[in-house]
Amino acid sequence: MRILLTNIKQLCQVEDSLDRRSRVAGADMAHIPCIENAWLLVAKGLIHSYGSMDDMPEMHADETIDAGGRFVLPAWCDSHTHLVFAAPRDQEFVDRIKGLSYEEIARRGGGILNSARRLNETSEEELYEHSLRRLHEVMAQGTGAIEIKSGYGLNTEAELKMLRVIRKLKENAPVPVKASFLAAHAYPVDYKEDKQGYINLIIDEMLPKVAGEGLADYMDVFCEEGFFSVADTERLLEAGWKHGLKPKIHANQLHYSGGVQVGMKHRAVSVDHLECVGDAEIEALKHGDTMPTLLPAAAFFLGIQYQPARRIIDAGLPVCLATDYNPGSCPSGNVPLLLTIACTQLKMTPEEAINAVTLNGAAAMELHQQLGTIATGKKANLIVTRPIPSLAHIPYDFGNNPVEKVIFGGKWG
Amino acid sequence: MRILLTNIKQLCQVEDSLDRRSRVAGADMAHIPCIENAWLLVAKGLIHSYGSMDDMPEMHADETIDAGGRFVLPAWCDSHTHLVFAAPRDQEFVDRIKGLSYEEIARRGGGILNSARRLNETSEEELYEHSLRRLHEVMAQGTGAIEIKSGYGLNTEAELKMLRVIRKLKENAPVPVKASFLAAHAYPVDYKEDKQGYINLIIDEMLPKVAGEGLADYMDVFCEEGFFSVADTERLLEAGWKHGLKPKIHANQLHYSGGVQVGMKHRAVSVDHLECVGDAEIEALKHGDTMPTLLPAAAFFLGIQYQPARRIIDAGLPVCLATDYNPGSCPSGNVPLLLTIACTQLKMTPEEAINAVTLNGAAAMELHQQLGTIATGKKANLIVTRPIPSLAHIPYDFGNNPVEKVIFGGKWG
Repeated sequence: MRILLTNIKQLCQVEDSLDRRSRVAGADMAHIPCIENAWLLVAKGLIHSYGSMDDMPEMHADETIDAGGRFVLPAWCDSHTHLVFAAPRDQEFVDRIKGLSYEEIARRGGGILNSARRLNETSEEELYEHSLRRLHEVMAQGTGAIEIKSGYGLNTEAELKMLRVIRKLKENAPVPVKASFLAAHAYPVDYKEDKQGYINLIIDEMLPKVAGEGLADYMDVFCEEGFFSVADTERLLEAGWKHGLKPKIHANQLHYSGGVQVGMKHRAVSVDHLECVGDAEIEALKHGDTMPTLLPAAAFFLGIQYQPARRIIDAGLPVCLATDYNPGSCPSGNVPLLLTIACTQLKMTPEEAINAVTLNGAAAMELHQQLGTIATGKKANLIVTRPIPSLAHIPYDFGNNPVEKVIFGGKWG
Repeated sequence: MRILLTNIKQLCQVEDSLDRRSRVAGADMAHIPCIENAWLLVAKGLIHSYGSMDDMPEMHADETIDAGGRFVLPAWCDSHTHLVFAAPRDQEFVDRIKGLSYEEIARRGGGILNSARRLNETSEEELYEHSLRRLHEVMAQGTGAIEIKSGYGLNTEAELKMLRVIRKLKENAPVPVKASFLAAHAYPVDYKEDKQGYINLIIDEMLPKVAGEGLADYMDVFCEEGFFSVADTERLLEAGWKHGLKPKIHANQLHYSGGVQVGMKHRAVSVDHLECVGDAEIEALKHGDTMPTLLPAAAFFLGIQYQPARRIIDAGLPVCLATDYNPGSCPSGNVPLLLTIACTQLKMTPEEAINAVTLNGAAAMELHQQLGTIATGKKANLIVTRPIPSLAHIPYDFGNNPVEKVIFGGKWG
């Protein structure tokens, strides 16, 4: 199947296929390389070639689409989600508005343990159906690669169930899916008084099975006061590495927890959340390739402080944005809306925000060789927008879906 | 055409047709009266009857729809928009992110004067087409009544052009449209040094024509430091009243401007914006029927302080929410997203927020006799949601459209 797009108003995020970037950082984030009035040929699931309409060669295509007035971009790469869950948590949303504390909400059966209880009661098949529906919803909003975490199981059987659902999504969805093993998300009720016992369970029982079945790409830990300490996190990350799982961790959401530093020390692919970032965290982030990943839609939904994106970018660092799609703190996987929040609340420019969910999103899943830019030989996961006047229109026109069509693996989505 | 909806999971915002409320205030805002497992019959464009499935009578219908799992609500009443405009202002959005001041943006041709320039260059027909498209977009998100303002003309001819476009929408759209005359939105370039001259032009030339052609329902003024003073506003509102136009005004967005008090004094139908509300404003609002109308989606988009909704409600007052859909400070007319912003940022409960855009939204357009609740004899402008577990799910599940179908004037929208 060869699809030819012609008269593209702007082909965005193009790069020289000989000089590919692995990520984009600092002042470079303000720039999205574009070709105006462009064509692009998709063949065998890949980006075959592209260029300016001024010198478009003769070529064969099975389907030619006039994309006049439209922008074409690489699909969004959403590198941090908890998309596999059993049930929404709308009651907890109301309790929070009414001023109940996290502890009170937990006492009423809310929080992660609520998700865990519901997940344990839900069959693998039902869980898969729910998750696939959600995945299709976000794909229609332009998401063309996604990371999904376990962490609502909190026992061996249920964690494996979640990871098998993610594997089934991997096998059946037309977009790349990465799996992170996040048993260290919270302490289950049975281990409330034996936290080290739960960590031992993760390391000694769960990890060998997860790794043995090849169910996870990454090891994740919620490194936060009251959850998993820096020392706990170190033990868990070391155990993960032994099984070939690189770290991608939750760090510095609620406190200056040392999470960023422990992530850097253990060569995490990304450190995610980062509401609490000071000089020490900035300095640590400069020494390594770990991707700082911000989740401002969760901060919006919780009504807490936003991440200091400007400070991180202005220090010359890269920034990645991800949705954190989950039933508690961000029941939305809508990337265009995430871009609006990043622009209006974090004061990222539209170009910075788009770099953060394309190339840098791909890098945060180690998919930058295949996705995240328009380059010959990369996977043809593409967004064709509605007719819009500018790239800035995507975050500007909030609450409307800017995506008219999507191409995944070279086929219409 | 008789449409029968059966098995409705919850029929929301019902009221006794003999004891209709004109608005809902204070602690009562926390309550949405509902019937679980309900039916509703639409006939001749009106709500004919409704009740519990437990005692549904035999009845004839042309079409019967099983609404199992779905909520049915009165359509949203969006009482403050600037939906008629010529062009987006996405460059200004970027300039603002980069830290340019309102004055710098205005110097670069941004702001209201930018919209006015573009509107003057755009034909009435083109303006109508753009506006109708936007109206259909928000109708698909559940908006079933809308107020639209002039105010991007700023000269007699262009203000009349805008109001004629609004009249044409009124005549052709399947939802009620109210028109507000807002020539006092900003000072046009020609009158920069002669502000009283522009006010005289509005009063002596524009108003007689607007009223003569019956083009407006309300008189609006942007009462704010640097725009129209309290004294200017008084002159304009008095002139409006003489032509039969009640006031609906912009007040207290940027300063404690006295706007609320002047609105109350002149028996405004609503005072809108209200970022700056203190004891004096609360006290003033208690003495009259003027509806306090909050526009938090604009505060979100601008990144400024939110309105003190809790303080107003806790003082026993009503609150109305509206989108402020306009190309500068809120390029979105998406009411479900407005509800999410109201819940997460203003800490309104879902019930309070839904009261604020149904009955209170209708009241802010004097449409509460016809719309805003489910009551026998009211206009059948209805939302049928997707299958959702609770009313709270509407603001909770943000970034997805909760609306599956709409009925306007008794017909499928």
